[in-house]
Amino acid sequence: MFRLIFLTTVLTLVSAEYKYTTKWFRVPLDHFGFQRNETFQIKYLENEDNWNQGSGPIFFYTGNEGQIEVFAKHTGFMWDIAEQFKAKLVFAEHRYYGESMPFGNKSLDNEHIGYLSSAQALADYADLIDYLQGNTIKPRYPVIAFGGSYGGMLAAYFRMKYPHMVNGAIAASAPVHMFTGMAPCGVFNRLVTSSFRTVNTNCSKNIRESWSVIRNYSSTANGSEFLHKTFNLCTPIKNATDLDVLLEFLESMYSTLAMVNYPFSSDFLTPLPAEPVRVVCQYLSEALTGDKLLQALAKVIDVFTNYEKKNKCVDYQKGDDYGNLDASGWDYQACTEMVMPMCSNGKNDMFEPDPWNFTAFSEKCHKKYNVYPRENMAKREYGGNRLQAASNIVFSNGLRDPWTGGGILDSLSDSVRAVVIIDAAHHLDLMPSNPSDPEPVKIAREIHKQHITRWIQDFWDQMAKTRRT
Amino acid sequence: MFRLIFLTTVLTLVSAEYKYTTKWFRVPLDHFGFQRNETFQIKYLENEDNWNQGSGPIFFYTGNEGQIEVFAKHTGFMWDIAEQFKAKLVFAEHRYYGESMPFGNKSLDNEHIGYLSSAQALADYADLIDYLQGNTIKPRYPVIAFGGSYGGMLAAYFRMKYPHMVNGAIAASAPVHMFTGMAPCGVFNRLVTSSFRTVNTNCSKNIRESWSVIRNYSSTANGSEFLHKTFNLCTPIKNATDLDVLLEFLESMYSTLAMVNYPFSSDFLTPLPAEPVRVVCQYLSEALTGDKLLQALAKVIDVFTNYEKKNKCVDYQKGDDYGNLDASGWDYQACTEMVMPMCSNGKNDMFEPDPWNFTAFSEKCHKKYNVYPRENMAKREYGGNRLQAASNIVFSNGLRDPWTGGGILDSLSDSVRAVVIIDAAHHLDLMPSNPSDPEPVKIAREIHKQHITRWIQDFWDQMAKTRRT
Repeated sequence: MFRLIFLTTVLTLVSAEYKYTTKWFRVPLDHFGFQRNETFQIKYLENEDNWNQGSGPIFFYTGNEGQIEVFAKHTGFMWDIAEQFKAKLVFAEHRYYGESMPFGNKSLDNEHIGYLSSAQALADYADLIDYLQGNTIKPRYPVIAFGGSYGGMLAAYFRMKYPHMVNGAIAASAPVHMFTGMAPCGVFNRLVTSSFRTVNTNCSKNIRESWSVIRNYSSTANGSEFLHKTFNLCTPIKNATDLDVLLEFLESMYSTLAMVNYPFSSDFLTPLPAEPVRVVCQYLSEALTGDKLLQALAKVIDVFTNYEKKNKCVDYQKGDDYGNLDASGWDYQACTEMVMPMCSNGKNDMFEPDPWNFTAFSEKCHKKYNVYPRENMAKREYGGNRLQAASNIVFSNGLRDPWTGGGILDSLSDSVRAVVIIDAAHHLDLMPSNPSDPEPVKIAREIHKQHITRWIQDFWDQMAKTRRT
Repeated sequence: MFRLIFLTTVLTLVSAEYKYTTKWFRVPLDHFGFQRNETFQIKYLENEDNWNQGSGPIFFYTGNEGQIEVFAKHTGFMWDIAEQFKAKLVFAEHRYYGESMPFGNKSLDNEHIGYLSSAQALADYADLIDYLQGNTIKPRYPVIAFGGSYGGMLAAYFRMKYPHMVNGAIAASAPVHMFTGMAPCGVFNRLVTSSFRTVNTNCSKNIRESWSVIRNYSSTANGSEFLHKTFNLCTPIKNATDLDVLLEFLESMYSTLAMVNYPFSSDFLTPLPAEPVRVVCQYLSEALTGDKLLQALAKVIDVFTNYEKKNKCVDYQKGDDYGNLDASGWDYQACTEMVMPMCSNGKNDMFEPDPWNFTAFSEKCHKKYNVYPRENMAKREYGGNRLQAASNIVFSNGLRDPWTGGGILDSLSDSVRAVVIIDAAHHLDLMPSNPSDPEPVKIAREIHKQHITRWIQDFWDQMAKTRRT
């Protein structure tokens, strides 16, 4: 059983209505070879309301694994600072997500999905920026890349690979070290556990105990029925596969709660209260066993799946896809280039022991997609733990966010900087400003603005120096 | 009629016998997508005779359009400095050249050639370096890239795209600006002309006159026969196609003579005397017409094709492929990503007027390979004229070399440096030291060594600073 953790699940905090124009841009299917000559269109969203067309920068969101509208809606930081910087906003959709499909609704079929890769997506963005610059030899506007989570990785990689096109990158909650050999496979689950343990040691202990209890109950007809009713599951647990899916669903629930452990309520795909980990842990504050433990867990599940009381039952059959946007695409990327080892041992974390087994993971990917993962691709292609070789990148990480375990927490050089934000969960700094924002997030945003200001100034200084056009 | 100028024709100056081990390394056919899962082997040559395995650097030649043995044999600079730096030498063969063929002898067929691209080749080299480092997370040895001509472009692009893997690059005679909008299309031919004019103004004038004379002669049976005999052509000029090929052959001859205008004799594919432009211009030092002009040209052709008196006749049917190594591959690259506009007007240069016509060029490429050239690819992918965004690159150019018209002649930043070498032809600085080397070349090599020393020291300084492995 592999737990596939989706990077970007936290997206719907906001009620603000942002306005943009939806546009399309034609790109080659393959930027790096010529065997296939097809082209297709990616979507991008554009807002020029605040743009000073003579000198205003382009703020460019490097879209990640989902519909671009969702990222545009929830990357409030870009909207919030557009006026100050007189910036044009562009949100580019990642190929094979949303509507940016090279082969229509057949894009995710095995015979068509092979051109889904970060390198191809970055090349799409490079082409788009060239177009936005007017296809001139000399760029006209400074470009700042923004992204959160996988989008943050893309923003950083974009600056690294296309420094002539991108003047700087704000890479929020980008787990660029979450690859083989760079971070321990257990770090993510340890940090999830830590979020729960911090509220109450019984909270994580109860969760750790619950796995065997659920397994025991599911092994009998009566126990299964108890789980079905108590958890309010839409369908009963009829076999080992159902049980696996339920356990995946629960593991994913805890991870997600830790990622979105914001200090204010959010309308995530299932809406959640402020401080959701604290809220759910209140049901698990005493040492529980048997029926009582499961009844308490039922309340946790209810918070996660039914905070607005609109669902009749828990659709656990979605497993770890629950609440994700475009699961298929990311599952493929995890099976090819974004190989992020995950494991648990039940001691340093509250999960069942589940060692990382690359061989088994490979076989699963091969069976599903007819590909073998390239375990070291991100290291080779994107700098691994040698990102000091790049420049003008800010890596921001919130210490509440379990992805921080794969993030860059120490500045690597004068221009590859780490911004560590206590009390912040997954890329909170990119979200719209909120009265409940903790002070450290406000400070982080000020630091971002200082970097952006400097990168823009550097651009104009360089332009002034360049004699040749 | 398109003149296809081959970048790297100048290769065989040396008699030194270098020893190396020939090895093979398996790479994916497609590094940037997963539709095709094939792998194949590229060749590389390795010498560890001088290597200090604990701390010696890897000097890595980024192979260009030809057999790697030829580059290993003629990049004497790397061999000459290996002992001083206690360096390991690696020469990697470019995919689709030499024996590094993904599909054996069918590799250059239209259905297989599409994975020939600079990006794929650089990714091959990145994988190989990772392997040479022992596939460790932390690199063990500093890596310096070297290359001349297209290989120099690759060395520079390698540092730009993989700064975490390559600590610096010596990019000799790399025409990184020889793309649309960055250099005038006529600059190459103007510089070729300048080489001849510098010797004697009559030399370039006679050549300029010769085109119409040849055309006139070829239009009659007697004239054609005169050309056949006087030029000692292997086959007569029977039709317009033959004439075109002859003219291409002659144009290419003048370009090549300018490129290899070294101060000592060299055994280029056809061996040449020292100062070959001066040698051929002695036959054209007076204003000539008609028979006399053609008889003088015959002597020029004889120097170019038969300096060692081994050929019975002039095989002009090779046209502009004459003396080139792997013409098919480069022709394809020129038709896809390496679109280098070339033109002449007969006024600023000594050639027949031949404007650059991208549309016609595109159509020719499409007809031949079923591809359309991506005119702006090198600009988008490799920095165009914004290479100050990269770091640790030395661009060296000899002022005798017509490719210098597309080279970087002014330093762009503290770490992207230009080294201009008067009296040097095409990447002479990378060639083995020679008693006849002009002083500026010796100085350039000393500057190269200073940069290499600093890049290596920077690597060790950074290693010492890095706490995390």
